[in-house]
Amino acid sequence: MPVPQTVSKPSDTPDKSFIDAKTVFKQTGTNPALGHGTIQTSTSRALQNFIAAYDGPTPHLVVELDVVERNYKALKTALPRANHHYAIKANPHPDLLKRLNKLGCYFECASIQEIDMCLAAGAQAKDILYGNPLKKASEIKAAYQRGVEQYVFDAALELDKIITHAPGSKVICRITTDGSGAVSPLSIKFGCPPEKALDWLLKANSSGLIAHGISFHTGSQQLNPASWNAPIRAAAEVFEALRKQGVDTMKVLDVGGGFPTNYRKTVPPITTFCDAIAHYVAKYFKTNAPLIYTEPGRYLPADAGFILAEVVLVAPSHTNPDIRWVYLDIGRYGGLVETQIDYPVYTHHEGEVGPVIMAGQTCDSNDVIYAEEFRYHLPKALTPGDRVILAHTGVYTTTYSTTLNGFPNLTSQCI
Amino acid sequence: MPVPQTVSKPSDTPDKSFIDAKTVFKQTGTNPALGHGTIQTSTSRALQNFIAAYDGPTPHLVVELDVVERNYKALKTALPRANHHYAIKANPHPDLLKRLNKLGCYFECASIQEIDMCLAAGAQAKDILYGNPLKKASEIKAAYQRGVEQYVFDAALELDKIITHAPGSKVICRITTDGSGAVSPLSIKFGCPPEKALDWLLKANSSGLIAHGISFHTGSQQLNPASWNAPIRAAAEVFEALRKQGVDTMKVLDVGGGFPTNYRKTVPPITTFCDAIAHYVAKYFKTNAPLIYTEPGRYLPADAGFILAEVVLVAPSHTNPDIRWVYLDIGRYGGLVETQIDYPVYTHHEGEVGPVIMAGQTCDSNDVIYAEEFRYHLPKALTPGDRVILAHTGVYTTTYSTTLNGFPNLTSQCI
Repeated sequence: MPVPQTVSKPSDTPDKSFIDAKTVFKQTGTNPALGHGTIQTSTSRALQNFIAAYDGPTPHLVVELDVVERNYKALKTALPRANHHYAIKANPHPDLLKRLNKLGCYFECASIQEIDMCLAAGAQAKDILYGNPLKKASEIKAAYQRGVEQYVFDAALELDKIITHAPGSKVICRITTDGSGAVSPLSIKFGCPPEKALDWLLKANSSGLIAHGISFHTGSQQLNPASWNAPIRAAAEVFEALRKQGVDTMKVLDVGGGFPTNYRKTVPPITTFCDAIAHYVAKYFKTNAPLIYTEPGRYLPADAGFILAEVVLVAPSHTNPDIRWVYLDIGRYGGLVETQIDYPVYTHHEGEVGPVIMAGQTCDSNDVIYAEEFRYHLPKALTPGDRVILAHTGVYTTTYSTTLNGFPNLTSQCI
Repeated sequence: MPVPQTVSKPSDTPDKSFIDAKTVFKQTGTNPALGHGTIQTSTSRALQNFIAAYDGPTPHLVVELDVVERNYKALKTALPRANHHYAIKANPHPDLLKRLNKLGCYFECASIQEIDMCLAAGAQAKDILYGNPLKKASEIKAAYQRGVEQYVFDAALELDKIITHAPGSKVICRITTDGSGAVSPLSIKFGCPPEKALDWLLKANSSGLIAHGISFHTGSQQLNPASWNAPIRAAAEVFEALRKQGVDTMKVLDVGGGFPTNYRKTVPPITTFCDAIAHYVAKYFKTNAPLIYTEPGRYLPADAGFILAEVVLVAPSHTNPDIRWVYLDIGRYGGLVETQIDYPVYTHHEGEVGPVIMAGQTCDSNDVIYAEEFRYHLPKALTPGDRVILAHTGVYTTTYSTTLNGFPNLTSQCI
């Protein structure tokens, strides 16, 4: 199956598939230096019908499950002999979990609450990886009672907790990476040096656990396929060192997530990253290839999601009247915490555009989503009450929303 | 009534009032260079009894209403001829709102939801200031229907909305300040130049509204009393200019909030700030003194709140083994978003302490609360399962909590 790929278009050409008689939404903010995203054309009819009909409160996130399915199948095709564990922190909507479970996707969870969400969606406990290296003893006990078999750790005291509270389980040790190339590196808090992994996995086997594998994470929205090189090599060395000490229980190499999605800038296709992973695994593991796990979060639902929002106020900057402030009913504390990510933005206005600063509606002055440096250009006709669409917002939005100032949590639904 | 003030103590002397037979909590992290906070001694018996008895889930915030009341009375005493509007975004717990309402406190709200919380707590609509300059037309309409009479604005299009949807109401124009001296400046997003305020307040009166006053905000946790000087002078000039144009409706000078509270560092007493405000008002308004509004948020419940939390994991840093990572069951996404604020931290361990990095339990690698630079020192005996107390966490915690990774929102109760 070919990998679905968005097609880059000149910035002055709106995506026609996203325009209908009732609601004309034109993508703006398409600075050529940043590139721009495009609506997934094959499913946009359902989306545009939804948007045209939607008259509920905003902000509201809608996620197209057919796009999620297409992404899952693309990943499965690109890396067929792997178990793909969806990192549900990205977006744990029940309908999304049900669809992925139906497709045969596995799950990566970071809490008992997330484990219960997956079980409620039909997942089996054996298909869940408890991937958070930070677990209370009570949480390990609860997962063990539910039948969860696989636990990640990266510290001595965490291993001790698993030995005590999840006897006989499989453990995966998370090693550090340097995180370079990622928009959001993940090794600031997590991971241990490979030599520690060796010691601790030996201890695991001698303490009644099963030393099951090595994991790492190259960072979220990772744009450099070569970033998988060093950690796969380091993991292979741990496997080999354990083999030399007679350990034959190591089965799994968890290469994490980080697969990027398209925002205003188009990223390389998923095959680029999966081919690189397969190449490094073959290179360093040779004939002893382990089972590969992945932990995609962002990649699966990100570009399937669209937030419908309303313009609350437009006002010229008092320091530079050429720049307008555009205040939306969603901001940093309503779910748009990933302010390093530049979402494509659509409005229904045609006509001249100009530079804006985008901000949220709360009383927190840090609630600025995009400063001038992001070079968003929005139509000069934009006015309070207008609807805007923030595209490719399917992940890390509902899970980061607060109720600051009493504004409700970001609502969402799947179509 | 004298202003209650915490007493600074040598950092090696634990606050004895916070120790009882069942639970010994010793304040740590008391780097002399930073100073340290102390438990409010007159009410700590109720708190220590609560903490000793508490066996529910953590993290959990407990707020002592008697401390809130003491703070309110101190503010009222320090600035008696003012209307004090509690900025409920700081902590909207129903019991807290009820207590403040009973004491005669007014309220500052930023959304319809906050307005409804105040009404539910017994406040009257006329005692509520709709202080957010960012309001949808539908929200202004809803507030007007509830009887809210006072609206803040800082932009032309916002004034237009109020003219249309809240006819006859009183409007207060928010002007900018430079925010210097504040831990969290608030004029990045908010406020307009005073000359705009003049134009717009004239327009308000000629459009059926009542030009009611000027507001500003010197920034949250404002440590410099002199920061009220320039905006009070600027406001007086607007009042005077309007008077010269025959406008006699201006009654209110809203000097905002920003009054600081004690964290690890002891701040000047509330009288310092209120005396400065009274001084600048007398200096610039002379015999035409307006009614003063304040908008305290942090000052009222901050030091009344204590978060009970659990240590999830302790692990040495792999780059500097002298430093330990201490992971708690609350972090940046559980409510501790104000990582510039250094809360006093208590544990029940005596003995040697050492430098730590404190972080939360979520899978987000940005979920680090205090890096090494904050110089927190915690006991070397600290271990997973131990309870810690984050003191003076009564504000900007529940309202900033998310459910990232499925972890529940920060729970809270008042005693």
